[in-house]
Amino acid sequence: MSKLRFILAVVAAASIVGTGLAHAAISAEPIQPIEAAKIKNPAIVELGKKLFFDPRLSKSGFISCNSCHNLSMGGTDNIKTSIGHNWNQGPINSPTVLNSSMSLAQFWDGRAADLKAQAGGPIANPGEMGFTHKLAIEVLQSIPAYGAEFKSAFGSDKVTIDEVTTAIAAFEETLVTPNSRFDKWLKGDKKALNANETAGYKLFKDSGCVACHNGPAAGGTSYQKMGVVEPYKTASKAEGRFGVTGKDADRFNFKVPTLRNVEMTYPYFHDGGAATLKDAVNTMARIQLGKKFTDGENAKVVAFLKTLTGDQPSFMLPILPPSTDSTPRPQPFSK
Amino acid sequence: MSKLRFILAVVAAASIVGTGLAHAAISAEPIQPIEAAKIKNPAIVELGKKLFFDPRLSKSGFISCNSCHNLSMGGTDNIKTSIGHNWNQGPINSPTVLNSSMSLAQFWDGRAADLKAQAGGPIANPGEMGFTHKLAIEVLQSIPAYGAEFKSAFGSDKVTIDEVTTAIAAFEETLVTPNSRFDKWLKGDKKALNANETAGYKLFKDSGCVACHNGPAAGGTSYQKMGVVEPYKTASKAEGRFGVTGKDADRFNFKVPTLRNVEMTYPYFHDGGAATLKDAVNTMARIQLGKKFTDGENAKVVAFLKTLTGDQPSFMLPILPPSTDSTPRPQPFSK
Repeated sequence: MSKLRFILAVVAAASIVGTGLAHAAISAEPIQPIEAAKIKNPAIVELGKKLFFDPRLSKSGFISCNSCHNLSMGGTDNIKTSIGHNWNQGPINSPTVLNSSMSLAQFWDGRAADLKAQAGGPIANPGEMGFTHKLAIEVLQSIPAYGAEFKSAFGSDKVTIDEVTTAIAAFEETLVTPNSRFDKWLKGDKKALNANETAGYKLFKDSGCVACHNGPAAGGTSYQKMGVVEPYKTASKAEGRFGVTGKDADRFNFKVPTLRNVEMTYPYFHDGGAATLKDAVNTMARIQLGKKFTDGENAKVVAFLKTLTGDQPSFMLPILPPSTDSTPRPQPFSK
Repeated sequence: MSKLRFILAVVAAASIVGTGLAHAAISAEPIQPIEAAKIKNPAIVELGKKLFFDPRLSKSGFISCNSCHNLSMGGTDNIKTSIGHNWNQGPINSPTVLNSSMSLAQFWDGRAADLKAQAGGPIANPGEMGFTHKLAIEVLQSIPAYGAEFKSAFGSDKVTIDEVTTAIAAFEETLVTPNSRFDKWLKGDKKALNANETAGYKLFKDSGCVACHNGPAAGGTSYQKMGVVEPYKTASKAEGRFGVTGKDADRFNFKVPTLRNVEMTYPYFHDGGAATLKDAVNTMARIQLGKKFTDGENAKVVAFLKTLTGDQPSFMLPILPPSTDSTPRPQPFSK
């Protein structure tokens, strides 16, 4: 999906909200079904899958992309802020990698334009994988079985960071989650949701949640201030988009996270401050919309949100080619 | 394979060596092919697979069995000694979980009688997963989808540590690696090895390596002193079997590791002191057998060892059931 289509979707959703969603005659819903990934180059995707699971891209030999974006757990680590090299406490909650290709940019502050630009970040971040691109390439280049895969994928067995991040991004683009119950409902199977869940969806729309959580990913289409109506109280020092643009207006602006598979991606918000969906829904209503849901309303919205869990990634655990005598060894405990 | 059969195999191998292996007319080889696992109870195995991959069995929510026995990497972590809770530097090299059901006991010092007894150890070890059995059970019991799996596997949805370790062990028993090139050769396909590799196998037998590395796993059948002919120099404080029996004679006695998939299970020895197979073969020859291989001989033995890589575990990445509002949350950074 192009950025233009996303922007149009955001504009459309905003104008729907503006005209009063509950009464508008809408032919299109603000959230669209997720479609299965079309794999363009299987060799690149298979290589990217191995790289995603390979902890040799970290200094310690212990942390892979999958450590914090665990594909067994909704593409997240399910902890408030991530654990990095030397048990470093990360500054921010790991966003899910699932459906991340649908975001307008990557990271909570959007500092990477796309998945390829994102993929190189954690490898070289001293508090995450703690490595360097140069050393990561040396490791991969020393393993002939990887060389052969790079050759098959890119036409040359010379490994570059550009190819590494291209392959990881290509794999991540396949990590979409179609066939949620909500998507079945959107496509016309009205029995896919029960009355409680459709009531939750109606509340979600009528309350204005869709102003930000729209598009196929139910999020990821815009930056929004965390704390529109009421300031968000947090110990987190993250300032969001301000760190990228330097504009005061962007302080505490964060990319709106996807709500797809949200039942699996706890805890919530950029600081992981909400442990449960109930907490997250109540806080969002209060600080973004100035609303207070009753317990019954909250439960309905949560019931709807749980229908957004789609087919999880389904593939064989990759087997990584072994290091060789010349492969640089991990340095987990060196200072 | 029963323990009795292992003991008989060890006795047989020892007597073969005693009579002079190179000249003995042996109908049976000292290493036997690995057979595919027979799964008795698929529900228990599937549950065990999920538990093996579930980091919620650790205090941090970050470390699973698969962290240090990574099934993408030969069932090991490929670092000298493992990283545990709070980046604790472990005291010993993580042995491979592959074919571990064939060992006479578990851990390098054999302090656990079997895989089930082993499985509970790391969960409650403060320097490994850093959790308690009680809390691990509370986590699992709070997740209805796990309750249903325990019910399907064991007839009751009440989770116990006995069931948890039974399931993990049942999964681990499936982690065997048949169809190595060496096994094909053993079964009669004489083209499965080249001349260099068969020469390496002959050297391996003639030099006495098979005295300890025998049976289907090419190891795991006995405890042996590390440093028979010459003391092994290491900074490791591990004293092996002595820690279990308290007998002076058991000091520096360690379980002989399997050589199956040894190309993937670097670094070698209980302290991870040998980075490469070349190093490992030379050190073993010198300190255990009082031999010095030429570079050519060493290369032949290494070539043979690389034929022991079998079919790696082949299954879909498990998807873990999400925590619920009542699930105790991980505590990665609490003291």
